[in-house]
Amino acid sequence: MLDVIRNLRRDGTDRDDVWKLAHACRQLLTERGESNSRALAGAAIERWRKLDADGMHRFFKVLAADFDPDPGEVLRLAENYAVSRSPDNLVKLARAAEPPRQELLRRLNRADGGTASIVQMRSRLLDRLRQDRSLKAVDADFQHLLSSWFNPGFLKLVQVDWSSPAALLERIIHHEAVHEIDGWNDLRRRLEPDRRCFAFFHPVLPDEPLIFVEIALLSAMPGAIAPLLDRSGPSNVDPASFKVAVFYSISNCQPGLRGINLGNFLIKQVAERLQSEFPKLRTFCTLSPIPGFAAWLTRANVESLGAPRMRTTNRRALQDALAGLRARHGADLSGLLPQPGSAAPLAPADDEADRAALSALCAHYLVHRTATEAPEADPVGRFHLNNGARLQRINAAGDLSRKGLKQSFGMMVNYLYDLDEIEANHEKFMHGEVAAARAVLSLM
Amino acid sequence: MLDVIRNLRRDGTDRDDVWKLAHACRQLLTERGESNSRALAGAAIERWRKLDADGMHRFFKVLAADFDPDPGEVLRLAENYAVSRSPDNLVKLARAAEPPRQELLRRLNRADGGTASIVQMRSRLLDRLRQDRSLKAVDADFQHLLSSWFNPGFLKLVQVDWSSPAALLERIIHHEAVHEIDGWNDLRRRLEPDRRCFAFFHPVLPDEPLIFVEIALLSAMPGAIAPLLDRSGPSNVDPASFKVAVFYSISNCQPGLRGINLGNFLIKQVAERLQSEFPKLRTFCTLSPIPGFAAWLTRANVESLGAPRMRTTNRRALQDALAGLRARHGADLSGLLPQPGSAAPLAPADDEADRAALSALCAHYLVHRTATEAPEADPVGRFHLNNGARLQRINAAGDLSRKGLKQSFGMMVNYLYDLDEIEANHEKFMHGEVAAARAVLSLM
Amino acid sequence: MLDVIRNLRRDGTDRDDVWKLAHACRQLLTERGESNSRALAGAAIERWRKLDADGMHRFFKVLAADFDPDPGEVLRLAENYAVSRSPDNLVKLARAAEPPRQELLRRLNRADGGTASIVQMRSRLLDRLRQDRSLKAVDADFQHLLSSWFNPGFLKLVQVDWSSPAALLERIIHHEAVHEIDGWNDLRRRLEPDRRCFAFFHPVLPDEPLIFVEIALLSAMPGAIAPLLDRSGPSNVDPASFKVAVFYSISNCQPGLRGINLGNFLIKQVAERLQSEFPKLRTFCTLSPIPGFAAWLTRANVESLGAPRMRTTNRRALQDALAGLRARHGADLSGLLPQPGSAAPLAPADDEADRAALSALCAHYLVHRTATEAPEADPVGRFHLNNGARLQRINAAGDLSRKGLKQSFGMMVNYLYDLDEIEANHEKFMHGEVAAARAVLSLM
Amino acid sequence: MLDVIRNLRRDGTDRDDVWKLAHACRQLLTERGESNSRALAGAAIERWRKLDADGMHRFFKVLAADFDPDPGEVLRLAENYAVSRSPDNLVKLARAAEPPRQELLRRLNRADGGTASIVQMRSRLLDRLRQDRSLKAVDADFQHLLSSWFNPGFLKLVQVDWSSPAALLERIIHHEAVHEIDGWNDLRRRLEPDRRCFAFFHPVLPDEPLIFVEIALLSAMPGAIAPLLDRSGPSNVDPASFKVAVFYSISNCQPGLRGINLGNFLIKQVAERLQSEFPKLRTFCTLSPIPGFAAWLTRANVESLGAPRMRTTNRRALQDALAGLRARHGADLSGLLPQPGSAAPLAPADDEADRAALSALCAHYLVHRTATEAPEADPVGRFHLNNGARLQRINAAGDLSRKGLKQSFGMMVNYLYDLDEIEANHEKFMHGEVAAARAVLSLM
Repeated sequence: MLDVIRNLRRDGTDRDDVWKLAHACRQLLTERGESNSRALAGAAIERWRKLDADGMHRFFKVLAADFDPDPGEVLRLAENYAVSRSPDNLVKLARAAEPPRQELLRRLNRADGGTASIVQMRSRLLDRLRQDRSLKAVDADFQHLLSSWFNPGFLKLVQVDWSSPAALLERIIHHEAVHEIDGWNDLRRRLEPDRRCFAFFHPVLPDEPLIFVEIALLSAMPGAIAPLLDRSGPSNVDPASFKVAVFYSISNCQPGLRGINLGNFLIKQVAERLQSEFPKLRTFCTLSPIPGFAAWLTRANVESLGAPRMRTTNRRALQDALAGLRARHGADLSGLLPQPGSAAPLAPADDEADRAALSALCAHYLVHRTATEAPEADPVGRFHLNNGARLQRINAAGDLSRKGLKQSFGMMVNYLYDLDEIEANHEKFMHGEVAAARAVLSLM
Repeated sequence: MLDVIRNLRRDGTDRDDVWKLAHACRQLLTERGESNSRALAGAAIERWRKLDADGMHRFFKVLAADFDPDPGEVLRLAENYAVSRSPDNLVKLARAAEPPRQELLRRLNRADGGTASIVQMRSRLLDRLRQDRSLKAVDADFQHLLSSWFNPGFLKLVQVDWSSPAALLERIIHHEAVHEIDGWNDLRRRLEPDRRCFAFFHPVLPDEPLIFVEIALLSAMPGAIAPLLDRSGPSNVDPASFKVAVFYSISNCQPGLRGINLGNFLIKQVAERLQSEFPKLRTFCTLSPIPGFAAWLTRANVESLGAPRMRTTNRRALQDALAGLRARHGADLSGLLPQPGSAAPLAPADDEADRAALSALCAHYLVHRTATEAPEADPVGRFHLNNGARLQRINAAGDLSRKGLKQSFGMMVNYLYDLDEIEANHEKFMHGEVAAARAVLSLM
Repeated sequence: MLDVIRNLRRDGTDRDDVWKLAHACRQLLTERGESNSRALAGAAIERWRKLDADGMHRFFKVLAADFDPDPGEVLRLAENYAVSRSPDNLVKLARAAEPPRQELLRRLNRADGGTASIVQMRSRLLDRLRQDRSLKAVDADFQHLLSSWFNPGFLKLVQVDWSSPAALLERIIHHEAVHEIDGWNDLRRRLEPDRRCFAFFHPVLPDEPLIFVEIALLSAMPGAIAPLLDRSGPSNVDPASFKVAVFYSISNCQPGLRGINLGNFLIKQVAERLQSEFPKLRTFCTLSPIPGFAAWLTRANVESLGAPRMRTTNRRALQDALAGLRARHGADLSGLLPQPGSAAPLAPADDEADRAALSALCAHYLVHRTATEAPEADPVGRFHLNNGARLQRINAAGDLSRKGLKQSFGMMVNYLYDLDEIEANHEKFMHGEVAAARAVLSLM
Repeated sequence: MLDVIRNLRRDGTDRDDVWKLAHACRQLLTERGESNSRALAGAAIERWRKLDADGMHRFFKVLAADFDPDPGEVLRLAENYAVSRSPDNLVKLARAAEPPRQELLRRLNRADGGTASIVQMRSRLLDRLRQDRSLKAVDADFQHLLSSWFNPGFLKLVQVDWSSPAALLERIIHHEAVHEIDGWNDLRRRLEPDRRCFAFFHPVLPDEPLIFVEIALLSAMPGAIAPLLDRSGPSNVDPASFKVAVFYSISNCQPGLRGINLGNFLIKQVAERLQSEFPKLRTFCTLSPIPGFAAWLTRANVESLGAPRMRTTNRRALQDALAGLRARHGADLSGLLPQPGSAAPLAPADDEADRAALSALCAHYLVHRTATEAPEADPVGRFHLNNGARLQRINAAGDLSRKGLKQSFGMMVNYLYDLDEIEANHEKFMHGEVAAARAVLSLM
């Protein structure tokens, strides 16, 4: 710690920015600062905003070095608590073990616009964290606090529609991460009466959606994305025909809230809301991409396909499927991909054999390669399965866009949210097992 | 811990309420609970609401016994951190030292109405805490979390006026703690154009004021409360005549938020707002009661009056003042109080000597007996001085109501909020010194 | 006309107020005024507000004399139109026959607060109209225009409840005309979950209810008012038990809108709204006073009781009933009234004979004396019957308050609103016939 | 009338639509209809909506024939009134002379959505009116009533900005009539901090702007439109630099409100609002097109140029100017227009002589050819001059877009709104004289 401060002091320029900010932060934590903390916090945030990228990085380093707990003190209090588990000993210990950074952030939050600034701060911090792991504990404090503040109990579920402010819609267009929104007309189609969009907001950030989900209300579970995105919406919509709510896109808007799982709550709260608006809805499912599939399949080793206790015939079938694909489309499967120079997405492999092989391998990938933290695991699959969803159906040729072909050879998947089984499914998943419908299991 | 659980289990009835609640709480903390936490939290809170007072107490005991950190684990991690101050070691330590109760409360908060329930829970907990100090660490966790969630940065400042919902005004009448509001007509006078009332709200408790302050806009700093409360407001109000904003009453509405200092922020934010509405306002002050004065004075020992380094003549003057009062009004000073059976408040002691003596002794009490945590210290004084206010003027015969005579022989005081000196004043106060105007000091 | 103006001019003082206002009005109607009418209208209204009662009266006389159509011109255009019914002739005629006062009011309405001022103007005008019938045509113009502007299609139906602004509730207390509201607690009972209150608002008068109705939701049609007004509301309300919506009070708030029948629309729109909130509601009825009954009965001539084509036995029975009452309670029926000096309302005549006699005579009064514009006709009865309601039940001892005994010897009545028959009932009523239930007819 | 009805009756199909609607309308006017008018009105409007264009036309003919005043009755009452100018006679006359259509419209307005339907009805009526002048009196009634209902005193001024609902912004894009808005990005530039957009709304049509105006806040009065529409807005806007508010576009949104001058009020109310937001604004002016100029100039007869009492030298100069232009650019001035096949607008005539000639002729056109109802008069000029604006500056090459060149050879004009002279200017204009700045007069 002292070194960091000393280094800061040596450099005249620093005195003018990072040093002054660090000083303001220390003051804010004093008793004296307490009496005027709103003004001091405002001034500190002002200073922070003016830092350049490098200054911010150095400030984070000060936070790491200068605002962590005193090891000796914590150890002493931990010993006391181990000797006598009294309330007093516990209170002292808990207070000492919490990094002072957290109190600093709570005080910075008192400024006008404090919360927005802290979310931005974390966004910058995460950019740096990749290179500089010494900031890990600082980030843990940001995440801990933001997770408490952005508790789902504090969030407001808002329906986004064509009467929403243009500024909000503009952000929706900007942040859509799954199926790009190509301008206002495209957006409008996604807000028509057979579509829904819901977002979470925090009360002190009324202009900033945190996360949003797009839903199609249909009469049956869909197997392909293109019809859902088709701009020419139906001329007539009959709400009585809505049987299935399809969550076809979910996007985070705040990089500063990474790691805080709002999607899980959003999906369940939206499902509740739709159920009460349309009591005849029977099915809540997704139509999801499988962003990890193509990379895994391309590199997969035929020999190592399969899973423990799998029957030999099944294992053999999988190996044959992959071998066949490679024989037909090249060792790197590039024959399944759009050709360079061809503007439009390629037609799907209509060969029945291709479809069957891809379906079986995809089922295998999601069932046996996703309930792990391995790098090849599919992140979208992990998200929904961890939320307690069930792997319901594999769809060949579900996304024939260039992106869809590249990331999963056009495969898509439906995950099913059945409220009665999400707890059991989630628990299974925690133990490495994926809840999957028979139809999926029988593909392998 | 185990004993508590075992005892719970032995009793069949308990299984039906406290035991089941404790079980639900434990489930909520499991991974399995995570996937469906909103529903589980709702069910747990439902259970809690149905407990009787005794059941609630036993539940708090479970929280104390069953949801605290593991001492051995914390000690081990504190040793690791003492050996190597690495981010990883710190992250693990901080996680282990935080009592699991906090995560439990964060998950309970996910239910609809969770925050309101947690605030009520703490209110019940505080009732019990007086008798049962074993709950102290539980309360520390509630306070820690609520303090973070009710951070001033999250609160909304709302002006309360005659167009506010009747339900809100009813609560204002109910919670006014300083100068009772005697029905709707009395309230109305306090909302007329030369008065203001502001409250803090938390966004998820839109119907529940947390704390509110009442202000009179005047042309000069007032010395007595009665004219401010007089129901026949002025027929004509000229905003150009407003020079002084007097904070004459501040009341907390949420017993569950005890110990979370919102008053400090409220006063300063309101001052800012009034300043921007009335740029000609020059003075922000209070007209405050001195609830501790009469009790202290009645019991005061003539000999021990005074303070270190006080001049002998001053000390002698104080002693004479008290002796004189006792000579004129009885050893217990009961002659200064309203007579039993007399309906109306008594007339003030018009004797100039009484006024001078009370003023000097009151100045002494506030300057020398308040910057301590001694039981006789005046709580209202401590609040404002700790906020950085200055003791500006002592007013004899400022509150001749029965309550005012009883608690302070009619004395009142103005505290002055001067933004330029609140930090210094607060710091002084932290070191045991009271910032006081010359006029006050010269009284002694 | 000229005389009025000339007289105005003679009087120097007038030049300073009424004359100037009249001049401003004339200017507002010129082409020149058109270009700046908002400012001119504002100035004229300002002038009007400053007039005293006499000045206002003289101003109304100017409106009567100076802003009416030119008889010669209208006659000429009426002749043209009679000769040739061409569009051009009609347009010119209609334009010339409309009194210029109407255009004047439309231009005054362009000022900020114009509508509110015009409503107030009419209220003052009505005060004067009683003595000065020369203002009748001026009033007809006000009524014509206000009736067009306060068209039900422009009004907003608002539910009044405990979260309404205190300022609005204060007006409700003030304007309640049927069953006085005795302060805020009394009001609160009328806003509890088994009660409703709805008001009509005009968009440009957001703080001014125009008319409101109070409703009790009950399981059966009530026969007495006291239980509905009892302040100790039910501890538990089960919306499933609501079968009957009782309109027990309807009050106008704007004297300036007299003669514009908003009550009819209010009742029907509220019934629609309640029906959609509580689909199990079966009956919409009133519990109404009969303000004209006692006066009529006291003065009734026994000989002339009855109606054309009534059977002799029925006629005889009515005559016997009245004679019996007079024998028992004095020729002036004063024995049925509260005794002077007795604080509480008297007990009802428990004599069965009295009840039967009063019921028969009351039925007769409402059925045979109300479908006329005779001075003795009951105004409340006329209002509901004209709206298409049916006379459903006569209730003896329904209102034993002093007011209830005085105006109707305690009798009350239920009018039933049955959407399927209101048109037919209304038409009957237009032809002098009252729609009444059998039970009512059989009383006679 | 009878013929129309008889014809309707003959035709079986008509009985199913126009006839039934006419019948419903007649019922609505009966006493019977009064008791249930909201429902009846709703049903009638429903019927109307289902008519095809021809059915609507026939319905308008029924309104013309069947709902006008009785000539004999009106004549009789006009005679009475001419004999005795009593209030009673006047009331009866005014009632009889008002076409019953107006009461019909007032009753139709009671339906949900009634006002919107009536506005649409008039829009359809106007379409028909061009061919069928027999509907002129029907239209006069619509206009009379709508003008009363859309009185500026009832309208709400709303600022349109980037936080407005997308649905509203879409309508702004759609209705912009002066300088086309090319999609959302173009719109956005017009809502940036140095731009304003305001619209009038009627309270019962909350989603339908009636008219809107676009304003640029600048430091000086602009002479050309292109810089105002340039999409790359300024990076930094300093409100202190705003000296001039330029109304550069004003568009009506409701064809059904044609002939109801809302623009006049909108401009003045917006000017008031901007003045209070930016007290340093000094100048309120327009930058306006001159849509009638090119057509007039092309056809102008050199000999007849000039005005009464114009000096011969001036007249000669004008004639020379026009002759010169024709010599240089062809008798039809087509040399001043964009060439067919050239995509981009042509460059302006940079020849100084062209500019001077066009400026002089344009000044002449606006000063001497606009204060008339002649077909060649410029409608935009008439609008602003009639509002009381002054002709402030003529700008050559102000609009070099294809449209600008075509309609006015690129000329634009600034009209100045000076509150102190709008009444006088308007009055002058009523007498055929145009208020013009010296600089404009000196051009001729």
